[in-house]
Amino acid sequence: MTIFKNITPIRYEGPDTNNDLAYRVYNKDRVVLGKRLEDWLRPAVCYWHSFNWPGNDIFGAGTLPRPWLGPVITQEMADQKLEAAFDFFTRLGVPYFCFHDVDAMATAHNLNEHQTNLKKIEEGFAAKIQQTGVKLLWGTANLFSHPRYAGGAATSPSAEVYAWASAQVRYMLEATHRLGGQNYVLWGGREGYDCLLNTDLKRELDQFGRFLSLVVEHKHKIGFKGTILIEPKPFEPTKHQYDRDTATVFAFLQKYGLEKEIKVNIEVNHATLAGLDFEHEVAAAITYGIFG
Amino acid sequence: MTIFKNITPIRYEGPDTNNDLAYRVYNKDRVVLGKRLEDWLRPAVCYWHSFNWPGNDIFGAGTLPRPWLGPVITQEMADQKLEAAFDFFTRLGVPYFCFHDVDAMATAHNLNEHQTNLKKIEEGFAAKIQQTGVKLLWGTANLFSHPRYAGGAATSPSAEVYAWASAQVRYMLEATHRLGGQNYVLWGGREGYDCLLNTDLKRELDQFGRFLSLVVEHKHKIGFKGTILIEPKPFEPTKHQYDRDTATVFAFLQKYGLEKEIKVNIEVNHATLAGLDFEHEVAAAITYGIFG
Amino acid sequence: MTIFKNITPIRYEGPDTNNDLAYRVYNKDRVVLGKRLEDWLRPAVCYWHSFNWPGNDIFGAGTLPRPWLGPVITQEMADQKLEAAFDFFTRLGVPYFCFHDVDAMATAHNLNEHQTNLKKIEEGFAAKIQQTGVKLLWGTANLFSHPRYAGGAATSPSAEVYAWASAQVRYMLEATHRLGGQNYVLWGGREGYDCLLNTDLKRELDQFGRFLSLVVEHKHKIGFKGTILIEPKPFEPTKHQYDRDTATVFAFLQKYGLEKEIKVNIEVNHATLAGLDFEHEVAAAITYGIFG
Amino acid sequence: MTIFKNITPIRYEGPDTNNDLAYRVYNKDRVVLGKRLEDWLRPAVCYWHSFNWPGNDIFGAGTLPRPWLGPVITQEMADQKLEAAFDFFTRLGVPYFCFHDVDAMATAHNLNEHQTNLKKIEEGFAAKIQQTGVKLLWGTANLFSHPRYAGGAATSPSAEVYAWASAQVRYMLEATHRLGGQNYVLWGGREGYDCLLNTDLKRELDQFGRFLSLVVEHKHKIGFKGTILIEPKPFEPTKHQYDRDTATVFAFLQKYGLEKEIKVNIEVNHATLAGLDFEHEVAAAITYGIFG
Repeated sequence: MTIFKNITPIRYEGPDTNNDLAYRVYNKDRVVLGKRLEDWLRPAVCYWHSFNWPGNDIFGAGTLPRPWLGPVITQEMADQKLEAAFDFFTRLGVPYFCFHDVDAMATAHNLNEHQTNLKKIEEGFAAKIQQTGVKLLWGTANLFSHPRYAGGAATSPSAEVYAWASAQVRYMLEATHRLGGQNYVLWGGREGYDCLLNTDLKRELDQFGRFLSLVVEHKHKIGFKGTILIEPKPFEPTKHQYDRDTATVFAFLQKYGLEKEIKVNIEVNHATLAGLDFEHEVAAAITYGIFG
Repeated sequence: MTIFKNITPIRYEGPDTNNDLAYRVYNKDRVVLGKRLEDWLRPAVCYWHSFNWPGNDIFGAGTLPRPWLGPVITQEMADQKLEAAFDFFTRLGVPYFCFHDVDAMATAHNLNEHQTNLKKIEEGFAAKIQQTGVKLLWGTANLFSHPRYAGGAATSPSAEVYAWASAQVRYMLEATHRLGGQNYVLWGGREGYDCLLNTDLKRELDQFGRFLSLVVEHKHKIGFKGTILIEPKPFEPTKHQYDRDTATVFAFLQKYGLEKEIKVNIEVNHATLAGLDFEHEVAAAITYGIFG
Repeated sequence: MTIFKNITPIRYEGPDTNNDLAYRVYNKDRVVLGKRLEDWLRPAVCYWHSFNWPGNDIFGAGTLPRPWLGPVITQEMADQKLEAAFDFFTRLGVPYFCFHDVDAMATAHNLNEHQTNLKKIEEGFAAKIQQTGVKLLWGTANLFSHPRYAGGAATSPSAEVYAWASAQVRYMLEATHRLGGQNYVLWGGREGYDCLLNTDLKRELDQFGRFLSLVVEHKHKIGFKGTILIEPKPFEPTKHQYDRDTATVFAFLQKYGLEKEIKVNIEVNHATLAGLDFEHEVAAAITYGIFG
Repeated sequence: MTIFKNITPIRYEGPDTNNDLAYRVYNKDRVVLGKRLEDWLRPAVCYWHSFNWPGNDIFGAGTLPRPWLGPVITQEMADQKLEAAFDFFTRLGVPYFCFHDVDAMATAHNLNEHQTNLKKIEEGFAAKIQQTGVKLLWGTANLFSHPRYAGGAATSPSAEVYAWASAQVRYMLEATHRLGGQNYVLWGGREGYDCLLNTDLKRELDQFGRFLSLVVEHKHKIGFKGTILIEPKPFEPTKHQYDRDTATVFAFLQKYGLEKEIKVNIEVNHATLAGLDFEHEVAAAITYGIFG
């Protein structure tokens, strides 16, 4: 039983319903140009927005009670979160979910534990997917929250950090593959620089290119058929992120011969932050042949 | 003994020194237009920048070990921080410091504890000021980090939150007075709105005007001779903050008859965030007669 | 006969019309909350957008042929423009128009000519208003296009320029009054500074305050019942304009005792340029009691 | 004799000079890291800034009297401008100048006239260069001021406009070559879109790629050894310009196989407009191997 147990499944009831917990406008079964809205939009609930954020901002402490969050996440907390998450997905009636490795698993203190804990929660996901029919839209590894990534992940000057990043992506790519995920996403929030004076731009880009080549190589090796997607963002948390916008990503992909292998996952607000707009980014990605 | 015990006091050694821990450019005793640089600039170390921030950002956990920080601050931790802070101030050779109430004191769970814990650390400050000669530039109350302030402090729709805010400012204004503080600052990071649809702008401004009138009244009652300063900022954390810039503050002060009593504490980056610049804000404040 | 002679009057024909020159969505007679749309919105055609702009930008010459435009506007050209304008207004079916003095009149080389030429076109307007029923929403004087205003109009350091500005506003306020205009608008595109180093901010604001006091005084003297409106804009063409946003205007109006006499005319894009939004500016103006 | 005849040549006189028309800081002969400042900086006067702009902005008429400017430029006016320009360059003591074709030549009404008039002024330039020693840093064709370019030059949907653009660049590239210009620059102020709804992005980029390939082909054909440079700018006048920033240009150059042939000419304010900074753009261009 989860905290949502008293919530009746949310359904489309039209614009005139008095029910606060109802869809008024979105009707997943409405057919537009020959396709159901749900099939056009493929809505997904993201673990990090709905289950891992305590409602804090940089000036204030969390305002949302989340019994499954804390400085260290135990397996029990991870399991409780999983239970609540799938209860939420099914009552909300969405077809997909997404997660970062560390959003879902128990806290790990070394790579062995990381692999073990991720495997444990993967088993939970597999059972829930089987049981509910909610599918994995995409998986992704969190290479930005742990202090080790303060200076970059694939672009860190530390070989140990690069190895950690590689291992996290490998495990998560494999888990995504086994869970039937449709794509695999990379968001490089720490792949960038805060100051040019202590950054060797060429070396970091080469390292990043090599890293992504390994991801593509491993994808083919394990037979994953989904698309590898980069999510562009111009800055925040890093002052300048290498995956600034679609054009910058396309420049990078061509330089490292990856333009046939990797596409972009465009986010509205990231486009705006870059001084562009969503429509431009979509049009640019289509023009460059990298629309994900 | 603090973590700074092996740091030799930092002194001006000129641009050619090989000593990493030396002032190369700033020479506090250099006389410019008849006044020492230190007297022109009045540099201060702020508790919140140097002692209370664990090096986190919104996408990542803290990277700075601070033994005196934690989810709950005990009196021992507060004392250890005080010891380190004054050791830092004196080795750095700065004449002033600043703090918010909760930066310095042990965590309080109710107003009685708040008053008691603030009093305890005030005693620590008084002794250190006496002993080191470092002076309090200004004090301020933190009305934004605790979840109770998520919807505003003086502009909160909750009477209890308004009372908490009033009490915090009263205690801190009195402490600042007793510690010889030169000014008292109010930064209204939560005094604003995130959405106009659930905000009664006029009522919130009236409430804020009444609050500041009480602060001014209490200042005169206790005989505090320092200036009450508002620190303008356009947004962040709140989408729109009422103290947006100098002109907006001046509009507000005139509306509530406070333009002779309250001045502004201008911050360079806040001016930039507002689409203005520091020089403009200084010139505007002088023109309006509210330059703090 | 004007260039619009072959254009059939534009009417509401609903969303399914095949007629390119028809209103598809806007139906002026549709009643919303007890009032016709046209009465809610009071749409007006502005002379400067539709008749005085040759389609140029700062990097390129004009692209729109306008037989009534040129380096010098003769009375014949002004009359031709008037004819075309009212033909346009009536075929479009809008109830109001707006103009700056120099938008409509023949080019003047001194104040006498200015007064004479404005009077001539005013007579044309009076006849057209009578004949078509199209009404004047507001009048305004152009105090920014002529080189004399490069350093300000009411805030110019030149007494002669100040006198020109005063005379233009006086004549135009009187013309607006006689033509039954509903409001009088002031947009201070050159009232600001490009560099603080050569600007005496206090003196310029005092001069601007005195100027607006004269406008208000004259309004009452001639019995004009419409509202005097300031149109805020943060910058462009001047680096910093004194009427930056609603709050800044309110600060100014209070300082010079004008807050009961002058209100604001808010423009969506000017709000955005100031880092605010239209809704905020409207809400702020209502809160301050200066919503025009 | 030009309007500068009473201006004594400007020289370095050091920070303490009382002479208003002197270099106080910049000393062209000062050697820094083994090279004269003038050789590091290669300062140039641009015709368009100093001789072709009448001091107007979008809200106001020109404020600078320029006897050689007018709606139509005669050969006499072009010659007078040339005389004044070289008098200015030599009295200022700068080693280089730059110009667009139409900045310098008499107004042309067709391509034959364009070619003839450009040739005439080229002869004037050749004589002046010979006589003064001032050199051509780079030449460029103006493909943005004439109304024909309102919808693009190389990306215009009109074949005639494309032909005009090609001819202008050809003539100017050849003139630059004959005048000993060190580089040839392309700024695509109209190569972009104002609205995605009426723009075929892929087709315009392909057309632009073909155009630049022709420029490179012609450069080699005529034996010009200088570098072809694109000057990135994100927008203004066009809402979105294809040469947005260095990364976007690099994406484009790779797509059309031009990354070994074309480099970038970075401008500080264009970088800022793109939400980047000059240092980033320089570092990116060096990293990509396209620093001009």
